Amino acid sequence: MEYSYLTETNKADVLIEALPYIRAFAGKVVVVKYGGSAMVDEEIQKNVIKDVALLKLVGMRPVIVHGGGKEISKWVSLLGKEPVFVAGKRVTDKETMEVAEMVLNKVNKNLVQLMERNGIKSVGICGKDGNTLHVTRATVEGQDIGFVGDIDKVDTGLLQSLIDQDFVPVVAPIGLDDEFQAYNINADDAACAIAEALGAQKLTFLTDIEGVCLDPKDKTTLIPRLSTKEALELVDKGNIGGGMLPKIHNCINAIENGVGSVHILDGRMAHCLLLEFFTDKGIGTAIYK
Amino acid sequence: MEYSYLTETNKADVLIEALPYIRAFAGKVVVVKYGGSAMVDEEIQKNVIKDVALLKLVGMRPVIVHGGGKEISKWVSLLGKEPVFVAGKRVTDKETMEVAEMVLNKVNKNLVQLMERNGIKSVGICGKDGNTLHVTRATVEGQDIGFVGDIDKVDTGLLQSLIDQDFVPVVAPIGLDDEFQAYNINADDAACAIAEALGAQKLTFLTDIEGVCLDPKDKTTLIPRLSTKEALELVDKGNIGGGMLPKIHNCINAIENGVGSVHILDGRMAHCLLLEFFTDKGIGTAIYK
Amino acid sequence: MEYSYLTETNKADVLIEALPYIRAFAGKVVVVKYGGSAMVDEEIQKNVIKDVALLKLVGMRPVIVHGGGKEISKWVSLLGKEPVFVAGKRVTDKETMEVAEMVLNKVNKNLVQLMERNGIKSVGICGKDGNTLHVTRATVEGQDIGFVGDIDKVDTGLLQSLIDQDFVPVVAPIGLDDEFQAYNINADDAACAIAEALGAQKLTFLTDIEGVCLDPKDKTTLIPRLSTKEALELVDKGNIGGGMLPKIHNCINAIENGVGSVHILDGRMAHCLLLEFFTDKGIGTAIYK
Amino acid sequence: MEYSYLTETNKADVLIEALPYIRAFAGKVVVVKYGGSAMVDEEIQKNVIKDVALLKLVGMRPVIVHGGGKEISKWVSLLGKEPVFVAGKRVTDKETMEVAEMVLNKVNKNLVQLMERNGIKSVGICGKDGNTLHVTRATVEGQDIGFVGDIDKVDTGLLQSLIDQDFVPVVAPIGLDDEFQAYNINADDAACAIAEALGAQKLTFLTDIEGVCLDPKDKTTLIPRLSTKEALELVDKGNIGGGMLPKIHNCINAIENGVGSVHILDGRMAHCLLLEFFTDKGIGTAIYK
Amino acid sequence: MEYSYLTETNKADVLIEALPYIRAFAGKVVVVKYGGSAMVDEEIQKNVIKDVALLKLVGMRPVIVHGGGKEISKWVSLLGKEPVFVAGKRVTDKETMEVAEMVLNKVNKNLVQLMERNGIKSVGICGKDGNTLHVTRATVEGQDIGFVGDIDKVDTGLLQSLIDQDFVPVVAPIGLDDEFQAYNINADDAACAIAEALGAQKLTFLTDIEGVCLDPKDKTTLIPRLSTKEALELVDKGNIGGGMLPKIHNCINAIENGVGSVHILDGRMAHCLLLEFFTDKGIGTAIYK
Amino acid sequence: MEYSYLTETNKADVLIEALPYIRAFAGKVVVVKYGGSAMVDEEIQKNVIKDVALLKLVGMRPVIVHGGGKEISKWVSLLGKEPVFVAGKRVTDKETMEVAEMVLNKVNKNLVQLMERNGIKSVGICGKDGNTLHVTRATVEGQDIGFVGDIDKVDTGLLQSLIDQDFVPVVAPIGLDDEFQAYNINADDAACAIAEALGAQKLTFLTDIEGVCLDPKDKTTLIPRLSTKEALELVDKGNIGGGMLPKIHNCINAIENGVGSVHILDGRMAHCLLLEFFTDKGIGTAIYK
Repeated sequence: MEYSYLTETNKADVLIEALPYIRAFAGKVVVVKYGGSAMVDEEIQKNVIKDVALLKLVGMRPVIVHGGGKEISKWVSLLGKEPVFVAGKRVTDKETMEVAEMVLNKVNKNLVQLMERNGIKSVGICGKDGNTLHVTRATVEGQDIGFVGDIDKVDTGLLQSLIDQDFVPVVAPIGLDDEFQAYNINADDAACAIAEALGAQKLTFLTDIEGVCLDPKDKTTLIPRLSTKEALELVDKGNIGGGMLPKIHNCINAIENGVGSVHILDGRMAHCLLLEFFTDKGIGTAIYK
Repeated sequence: MEYSYLTETNKADVLIEALPYIRAFAGKVVVVKYGGSAMVDEEIQKNVIKDVALLKLVGMRPVIVHGGGKEISKWVSLLGKEPVFVAGKRVTDKETMEVAEMVLNKVNKNLVQLMERNGIKSVGICGKDGNTLHVTRATVEGQDIGFVGDIDKVDTGLLQSLIDQDFVPVVAPIGLDDEFQAYNINADDAACAIAEALGAQKLTFLTDIEGVCLDPKDKTTLIPRLSTKEALELVDKGNIGGGMLPKIHNCINAIENGVGSVHILDGRMAHCLLLEFFTDKGIGTAIYK
Repeated sequence: MEYSYLTETNKADVLIEALPYIRAFAGKVVVVKYGGSAMVDEEIQKNVIKDVALLKLVGMRPVIVHGGGKEISKWVSLLGKEPVFVAGKRVTDKETMEVAEMVLNKVNKNLVQLMERNGIKSVGICGKDGNTLHVTRATVEGQDIGFVGDIDKVDTGLLQSLIDQDFVPVVAPIGLDDEFQAYNINADDAACAIAEALGAQKLTFLTDIEGVCLDPKDKTTLIPRLSTKEALELVDKGNIGGGMLPKIHNCINAIENGVGSVHILDGRMAHCLLLEFFTDKGIGTAIYK
Repeated sequence: MEYSYLTETNKADVLIEALPYIRAFAGKVVVVKYGGSAMVDEEIQKNVIKDVALLKLVGMRPVIVHGGGKEISKWVSLLGKEPVFVAGKRVTDKETMEVAEMVLNKVNKNLVQLMERNGIKSVGICGKDGNTLHVTRATVEGQDIGFVGDIDKVDTGLLQSLIDQDFVPVVAPIGLDDEFQAYNINADDAACAIAEALGAQKLTFLTDIEGVCLDPKDKTTLIPRLSTKEALELVDKGNIGGGMLPKIHNCINAIENGVGSVHILDGRMAHCLLLEFFTDKGIGTAIYK
Repeated sequence: MEYSYLTETNKADVLIEALPYIRAFAGKVVVVKYGGSAMVDEEIQKNVIKDVALLKLVGMRPVIVHGGGKEISKWVSLLGKEPVFVAGKRVTDKETMEVAEMVLNKVNKNLVQLMERNGIKSVGICGKDGNTLHVTRATVEGQDIGFVGDIDKVDTGLLQSLIDQDFVPVVAPIGLDDEFQAYNINADDAACAIAEALGAQKLTFLTDIEGVCLDPKDKTTLIPRLSTKEALELVDKGNIGGGMLPKIHNCINAIENGVGSVHILDGRMAHCLLLEFFTDKGIGTAIYK
Repeated sequence: MEYSYLTETNKADVLIEALPYIRAFAGKVVVVKYGGSAMVDEEIQKNVIKDVALLKLVGMRPVIVHGGGKEISKWVSLLGKEPVFVAGKRVTDKETMEVAEMVLNKVNKNLVQLMERNGIKSVGICGKDGNTLHVTRATVEGQDIGFVGDIDKVDTGLLQSLIDQDFVPVVAPIGLDDEFQAYNINADDAACAIAEALGAQKLTFLTDIEGVCLDPKDKTTLIPRLSTKEALELVDKGNIGGGMLPKIHNCINAIENGVGSVHILDGRMAHCLLLEFFTDKGIGTAIYK
């Protein structure tokens, strides 16, 4: 019986640790960028969506922004075209754009379907809806690569209205320009722009790595908490590089534009959102002002 | 100058005729089922969307429900499958359902894009969003034909919230069953179910015919206004038949379930919505209680 | 049949032209100064009131300000007195003031009666009610001419409350001074002061002329649209003079004090209000900032 | 000093007596029928209006309904006509009606002016405004006597809206029939109908007698408080007769139709309203259920 | 009968004098510091509480702040301790503090009980409740005298909420410091701090003297009304001294911190609150800006 | 690292278990009867109050009802009187009642002080405040035992208002009878009556035992969950007896009068409230309908 008594003390400890966070984040907007491996594996997908549902359940106001890179390539190939990239960005002609929209909307509505299965009302939109994401045509390395856009304005009317009505918005990264032409958008950029425009408490990237590590090859060197100043120093010292570099710059910008904190988590780890938000130590890297 | 003076009198007459209707319908919900040829021709599509935008502009609350039949077949074929129908309903296996969703969502978001181009905030949803359309698996002529559903419940929460926030909802006919599995739905049925659930003032079908004609081959025999009782008598006498028959039954059901009136219009006629709603005589067939 | 088909296109054109104006002016306050011939002829009166009723019907918020000059003279004479004027303003002794009040209130309540007949709830007030119009005793050409007042303050409490409750206020130009003594007020001045105090979108004068004409004798030289700057230039050049001169100065002041636009219309022309407000070209002269 | 000490005790006693009434009647509607001698004498008029202003000041919601009998006769004569009466009701041809309206509206706006002078916002309306008083043509002793109407419906929309916005409505007894033709109404009847429609707490008649006396010739036999049952018994026993008889029937009807109490006061007695409402004993006759 | 007629005139006069005050103070907060002899005599206590109840009845929003000096000494003695004072303030060790709290809360709830007996909903709180009174440890003449605190912050949340919900708060002068340790507070200081924090219209001290007298020994020299400037002059001239001196400084501070007026009344005089507030002359000394 | 990984899984499990309860109970009223040993030991008291603070923190709406038995006896003795009991109820003469009030109010405000120390706004009231607890004089075994009352009505106005304004009410069991005389009340009875009147989701007794055990001497026979029917059967079979018997009847009555569930917990066990409410198994005995 000794053991079970301990367990009850443990449970009480977890609760006493978590309750103040639950309270503090009630009613707060959290934008979750969802992509990469965490979106491919069906089991992980279930866990992620369950976490988002639990966040909503205890009063947070999640917004999901997703990508769809791998699926788009698959369908483009199915239709007999070869995917082309410039500096990691997809060259998007009219046909590719049509396929990209179809695929992103499919992914989008499937995530809605999963949320509904968890008992949470959810609505799948893209940047066309309510003219939410306004873009200008992007130039990559001096090249025009087609229907790829950079966000220059977020109209939060629809998002805010859905949030206020207790829906979880799920956003596909498509936007309109001044001529109401549709464009593909980088999902990380979309998540940042939306978090900033909503004044989100938290912006969270579900990635394929544990977070920011002093030595990227050794995950025991994970840094649980960084100020933007410390993050810039790590960049200067060369500790942060590669694919993490643009993400870190995104994070710092987001915080400077009013987002409370940015979290880089390993989306493959079960219930990473709950552990990051509701425990003292967290599980990935949190970047604060 | 005589002529221009006449024109001013004429303009005043049109306005004096129209203003009471504009007033009477302000704030009222009108569900527009949009499909057929009116959706294929780009010029007509522009006019239809402009009309819906004008209805919104003067205070009505339009909801668009669309189909996508011809495009779905096109894409199914592109992927190397043969479309199969039973009693006019598409046999929908898992692959076909995936394509149907992609195509319907593409059409959906394109209509949203057109509405936005007309300066009207619009949101594209399907029945998954907000768990709006709940279905049971359909049986057609005793046969299971796959992922085809009959609506048994409309949750108006999301639609009403969008309408209240001044958005024009555009709805793709996809629903979820008890297991949160997705199904294709007949667009006419979806329009009826939504109009009934919203207690719409008007339900309008944009079709490829002028309306109900005593002699379907002679469009000068168009009947501008019918009671449900008169409609049933015409059915009994055999004046109404063919593809019009199920439509008429849909109309009568809708009115019995609380819809104010149902309008069958020729979607190919320019500005048919304005002329039907804001002139004394109208332009198609209106069915009232 | 060709002709009727044309007519439908025409009707659609009129509606497409009018609907954006109807929308743009919905909820906006329009002050209509009503006087002159348009008030004497019974047929014209009916048309004017019908127009105001239609404006209200489609969501505008009309306020009528009226005079009563000719009727006052008639009754003063009936009681055996001779009307006397200084610089166009009535010398108003105590007895004349009593008659003026009786006549203005009679005209006032008759307009209310006509509005009610058109199905529009209306309330007849003068500047005493709710202490709406506060005046100081006027001096005309250095002379005291009795109970004639200049407005120095409008308390919009009552007017705003009536407008908010969906009544059409009809205002007789009588005010109170600091001692709560009653005074007669020039109706044009009252209309301007009320339009300014309410921040009206439009102030409209129903007069006995077509509008501002380059050559007042040739109505084909009517100017449909003027900026205040252009109006002042016309005054400087001598194109505007006579009775139009004080009206134009009133208009310019009103616009400078926040009224959206001022319209000078021929009150004798049928439905001049509808044509001026809901057609591109209008029918009289509109003055804008 | 003894005396002044007593006076302070006395003052406290008056306040302790009055405060619960003041509280109990706060927010309650009281309809004051104002007519007869109390309206002719200027000093009395000032006192009455001051009382009504004080009632408003401490939170009651007064509505004044007035007549104008003597003034109408004066003006009819001025215009060279002879007043004619049937059973005490004025035969009202078209010309007389025009004069009656002018005179009633003059009296009406003068009362408004007096209220404003006491610092109370007030609005003068007749039954045309807001279509408040709807009538049918009356028949008196089998005779048609012209534009004399019986109220059959009170639309309280305007009155309630004015009351809610803290204005004191002053009502002239003119109404409209189905054809929107204007009619003269008996002021006592108008006061009753309005009190009933508003569900007034109190209806008060300012008359030329002290109240109901057992012996009408001996004012020491005044009855301060009567139930409707007792009133009917007095009628049966013949104690109440003459001009008091229809008034008593009016009172009883009013109470049966929801008015809290009816008060018959001597309008010539200074501050009769305050003394009746805010002292235990009152000053006239109060009739309760 | 002559006499009773006079009495009615008198009653009307008292009411006409009182009604504007009643109106002017409706909804206004009045803080009543209640202590001294007025709290010991049971008959006087009943009258005071009845007055407060009547103030509430006619719409004022009273707050009672009370002391308990004599009772605390009694109970401290009962428990075998000797009361000790420094400069008029009680030396308060832990045991004394415990007794003081018990006694003050008893007095507090007894006043609540009396209010309830008068039909007024009342709530007894001390400065611990809602963390209303925040204190720092006091130093008196350079000495620490134990648990005696000076208020440095009033959190009006609870008081305002009780007032808004139509309760009469009764406040015992106990507060908490930063460590949430309880302290005794001087009741006059508490009344001032609360009146200032609430922006009270009136702060009233019920004392054992008539008010401020030019010659404190001659109550016919009572000054009914003083400006803060005049009060300071009296202090300078030496007319105000003794126990009145700190009270006067309290009054002046209160007014400078936003309280409308401060009243010093003889709490032993029956209904002093009604007479001070609702008569022109008042009964004690009122200090205004 | 294995171990810490497990711990994170464990934490996630505790959270996933707790979050739905946290959500389900958000905004729900829980009445906590606090007494016995848990109130004497200072360490336990701190834990209990911390738990209540955490319940409030995550959105529940706690109400504390406390007793004070042992302290009252102590103070009665201090003042030289002998406590007397009849059937476990204290014989309460006037002097004892005075002491009881003083002690209960002291305990009451000390609990408020502890809540404030935990950062939770709290208000200490007794049944006098807002006339919350109305009683009739109790008879115990046919004997009058003085100022001991049975609750016959709870006026929830004050409690509800405090709860709505986000305060935690702490209630001392004192009430008033029709004559506004104060009475002592059994704290368990007070907790039941308040929970019923508020329609509480939960009523919780913090006692000195683990809960309901099949064999009261063997705490491993604890029953975690009972229906009222099962509870009655246990009473019939004799498993429940002694001091537990009246408590069980209280519980059953409470549930029949609308309380969602009643919980009997060991108040001495650390964080028993959190563990009972936010874990699947709970820690004491829960009784449901």
